[in-house]
Amino acid sequence: MNAEIIAIGSELLTPQRIDTNSLFITDQLNVLGVEVTMKSIVGDDRTLMTAVLAAAMLRSDFIILTGGLGPTEDDVTRDAVGAALGLGQAYHPEVTAQIEARFQRSGRVMAENNKRQALVLETAEILPNDRGTAPGQWIEKNGRVVMLLPGPPNEMKPMFAGQCIPKLRLKMPPLVIRTRFYRVAGMPESDLDQLIAPVYTKYTNPSTTILAAPSDIQIHLRARCETEQEAERLLAEVGAPIEALLGDRLYSRNGDPLETTLGKLLRTRQVTLSVAESCTGGMLAERITTVPGSSDYFLGGFLTYTNAMKSALLGVDPKLIEQHTAVSKEVAMAMAQGAMQRTGSNFALSVTGYAGPGGGTEENPVGTVFIGMAHAAGAEATRLKLFGDRQRIRAMATQTALDWLRKKLG
Amino acid sequence: MNAEIIAIGSELLTPQRIDTNSLFITDQLNVLGVEVTMKSIVGDDRTLMTAVLAAAMLRSDFIILTGGLGPTEDDVTRDAVGAALGLGQAYHPEVTAQIEARFQRSGRVMAENNKRQALVLETAEILPNDRGTAPGQWIEKNGRVVMLLPGPPNEMKPMFAGQCIPKLRLKMPPLVIRTRFYRVAGMPESDLDQLIAPVYTKYTNPSTTILAAPSDIQIHLRARCETEQEAERLLAEVGAPIEALLGDRLYSRNGDPLETTLGKLLRTRQVTLSVAESCTGGMLAERITTVPGSSDYFLGGFLTYTNAMKSALLGVDPKLIEQHTAVSKEVAMAMAQGAMQRTGSNFALSVTGYAGPGGGTEENPVGTVFIGMAHAAGAEATRLKLFGDRQRIRAMATQTALDWLRKKLG
Repeated sequence: MNAEIIAIGSELLTPQRIDTNSLFITDQLNVLGVEVTMKSIVGDDRTLMTAVLAAAMLRSDFIILTGGLGPTEDDVTRDAVGAALGLGQAYHPEVTAQIEARFQRSGRVMAENNKRQALVLETAEILPNDRGTAPGQWIEKNGRVVMLLPGPPNEMKPMFAGQCIPKLRLKMPPLVIRTRFYRVAGMPESDLDQLIAPVYTKYTNPSTTILAAPSDIQIHLRARCETEQEAERLLAEVGAPIEALLGDRLYSRNGDPLETTLGKLLRTRQVTLSVAESCTGGMLAERITTVPGSSDYFLGGFLTYTNAMKSALLGVDPKLIEQHTAVSKEVAMAMAQGAMQRTGSNFALSVTGYAGPGGGTEENPVGTVFIGMAHAAGAEATRLKLFGDRQRIRAMATQTALDWLRKKLG
Repeated sequence: MNAEIIAIGSELLTPQRIDTNSLFITDQLNVLGVEVTMKSIVGDDRTLMTAVLAAAMLRSDFIILTGGLGPTEDDVTRDAVGAALGLGQAYHPEVTAQIEARFQRSGRVMAENNKRQALVLETAEILPNDRGTAPGQWIEKNGRVVMLLPGPPNEMKPMFAGQCIPKLRLKMPPLVIRTRFYRVAGMPESDLDQLIAPVYTKYTNPSTTILAAPSDIQIHLRARCETEQEAERLLAEVGAPIEALLGDRLYSRNGDPLETTLGKLLRTRQVTLSVAESCTGGMLAERITTVPGSSDYFLGGFLTYTNAMKSALLGVDPKLIEQHTAVSKEVAMAMAQGAMQRTGSNFALSVTGYAGPGGGTEENPVGTVFIGMAHAAGAEATRLKLFGDRQRIRAMATQTALDWLRKKLG
């Protein structure tokens, strides 16, 4: 079975916007074993959309349309589908009632043109929309399935995953999918691939996908089998040697980001954390606190963006800064110890460095970052030599700091 | 004149990858006054690609194909174009010589299959590729222009901008482009549109594009005229009433983000800033310090994620927290004052609130955030009622805090 995705909306043909709905839809379809063979992006142009859909009906089993279901004249998806499939539209007052109730709940009055959203194509099944005014529609014709979905991702995603996927699954041969989702820190993608390619390239099932971000690599294994046992057996066969090769660089087996893995470790060990940040300027703490409930283990911290602040807020001896500069192992350790003492946390992480584009010295050019860690046994620090722009250097420093503490606790 | 973009490559039909080449191409075409009316993404499938190109030839003046020009059997763009346009291919030994020279320069030996890249379609003009092995091709037929470009962005971009755009410009009437790029904080998109639509909808030139993110809206005006004077006159004619309507909600006339605008104000006023963050957990400082050189005005701050830390690090009276809770106007003011006193900054911003998903009270549910500001004249605080998930609430709170200080200084 193959699928085709058509995204509708003139804003998707500007230099500023891109269709990302199709990534979510593709992932959901791939899990079912359905491949996407083509994607199209068309503007609010009824004639063109009708032609594109007519061509899709000749070649694709499942056709997913996103967008163009709004209340204005620009929103032409319903009309184009009607024209391409030869289906009329009927006004459904019960849909208007739902839209009207939605407006009332938020204290607004429904505009007259919202009634357009209650037009439903002949033979279509209505897909209710809990998050917005435009209901989706599901149409089966000539052995094809055509799905009309709203464009806003927060409306489209639950509708597709919650309503369309279960209905599509009934049309597919029974298939069990099992996945593993590894995450690895502190390795360049090329090194990782060289290490594990001899394992995974021997298999097409499970399939392996590797995705790399700065200092963070995701490895997706996906097994498609007739039984759960067979899928799990295959995943173990490929996963076990990969896990052995990666060792403690592997920080997640379920796709959790590093800050979540670290948070779980801190909670399990019943220890607390504080931070002292210079060049990362809050990025380290921001990542730690993206995790709901992080207040269980994260106490707080200090942003000391100047030398004077390092001394005033963290008690770093000005002579130490004078002697070693603020970007040094000694100051990184003193910052971490200052944060630990002042917050009473069990662990503290510090970051000081040159994120660029200005700053740096001959000995410590832009990209030089020291990470400090304080704990009951004292303090340590490590020197990093990072490359890239300001944002990348800050992100790599943050990732390295989190991963260092993870290994310490692990 | 209209254009259609076709991206080729099976990897662009996976959940991990997206065609972004088309954004660059669209921007370049828009500057010429050419609109993109459709985009397609197809896999390495000769039959499908031939059909898609044949349909494009019936409706689009300029057709840009990216990808599929490599040396392997998967790379089927040349064959599909030949089939769709009825053109044969000829082997050009001089292209092979160039590819071979390229390999030699990097100390490698050209593989035999690279010779496939020296196949050129009848009537095609070769577009040399300085960055890779695949030359581009420019074909004119039946009043259409078909461009075959390599897929890697670092090869495609210079070829399109440097070779195709100058040739396309000759086919277009002479044109001068001038733009304005406004940014606005603190308004919902619908309110902004209602306010300024009566102005901009009267004009198709300049064209207006509105892009919205949480609490941040961009307004792009683009005038296309025969002379620079005319373009500037039109921009002023549309821009002046828009600026007047937006008033001090307009924070940028050149596209600078809010933290850059605020940074310039702080530097001009020669004043310094510190922060005290609770629920935003470092996000406010992180944004302030994304600006290179922010150490000129940003001293540092405090992350006080627990009540105890608010007292220990910022000197907030525990009785104040007990009486009003940590999420209150009083505590927000005390946090800002504590940060200002401890850092010696001229201004301090604080944030305390319930970012969710847990927490909140009946009176102050999730989404309630207080922003505090301290300055020479004392302290103030404001209560926000925000909606959305944890990330959105934190981002909106951060944006509101930065914008409040901007208005204070402005």
